[in-house]
Amino acid sequence: MRFLGVDPGSRHCGWGVVDREGARLTAVAWGRISPAPERPLPERLAEIAAGLAHVVATHAPQRAAVERVFHGVSARSLIVLAEARGAVLAELARSGLEVSELAPAEIKNAVTGSGRADKQQVARMVALELALPAGRIAADATDALAIALAQAHREGLASRLRTSR
Amino acid sequence: MRFLGVDPGSRHCGWGVVDREGARLTAVAWGRISPAPERPLPERLAEIAAGLAHVVATHAPQRAAVERVFHGVSARSLIVLAEARGAVLAELARSGLEVSELAPAEIKNAVTGSGRADKQQVARMVALELALPAGRIAADATDALAIALAQAHREGLASRLRTSR
Repeated sequence: MRFLGVDPGSRHCGWGVVDREGARLTAVAWGRISPAPERPLPERLAEIAAGLAHVVATHAPQRAAVERVFHGVSARSLIVLAEARGAVLAELARSGLEVSELAPAEIKNAVTGSGRADKQQVARMVALELALPAGRIAADATDALAIALAQAHREGLASRLRTSR
Repeated sequence: MRFLGVDPGSRHCGWGVVDREGARLTAVAWGRISPAPERPLPERLAEIAAGLAHVVATHAPQRAAVERVFHGVSARSLIVLAEARGAVLAELARSGLEVSELAPAEIKNAVTGSGRADKQQVARMVALELALPAGRIAADATDALAIALAQAHREGLASRLRTSR
């Protein structure tokens, strides 16, 4: 099964595609979409949506996951992140993908075993688990790969639970 | 010139199309898109985007305007509104429309002459200015018509300022 993780940020939208075959996890592709910051917001959001449509058409993921917006940041950042998330969720659903929304603690927990891991620990575990060169991948893409990994673990667990019944 | 106003709410997305010829303003069409509340968020956002694409294809507006998210409501409502707005802005830009973002006070001021008018005053002025039966149009559609009207006034003013130079 192939998973797409998306990390919609205010300036960059990270994405990562992960394959899971049994317990084996492989990174297929990753990157980020970075609209020119001087363009108006609607055009930047449309560019992110079009970029994701291209990723979906190229890599044909079967599931998608996006991080849930976290509370506790400023109202202004919340709005900017939620706007990007809205454009991303609409585009993924339009592509016919089933989209999961994962809380930050769920992602950290699935990847590192602790819901309170910091960004560096998450990045290290993503690199380790996918056998990627640590520190060579943009932070947004690493976060997106972490989201794809978390979703892959989640569905792997769900299918093992189903099998063992 | 033809204007599309969009009011992205958490449950309904109102829309309204207004024509301006000189000082004459006419309501062309209005309505709201109401995705089934039990569907997952990504699908509801995609349904709003698809509904707007249909409105744009049917009525061919030349400009679009959307209300800017207001501060001062709860973080949860801010996020929900901003997600809907993100999906709407991306879709309008994808349709090739130039999209303006108007602050609530700008809309109220353009429609009623006061930036602090209440919802009823705005609805009454929209009905009056567009010669529509007051109280017969859904609140979301009335708000969307107010946004279209505000944008029409704004561009009318801008073009009069250009002409008088």
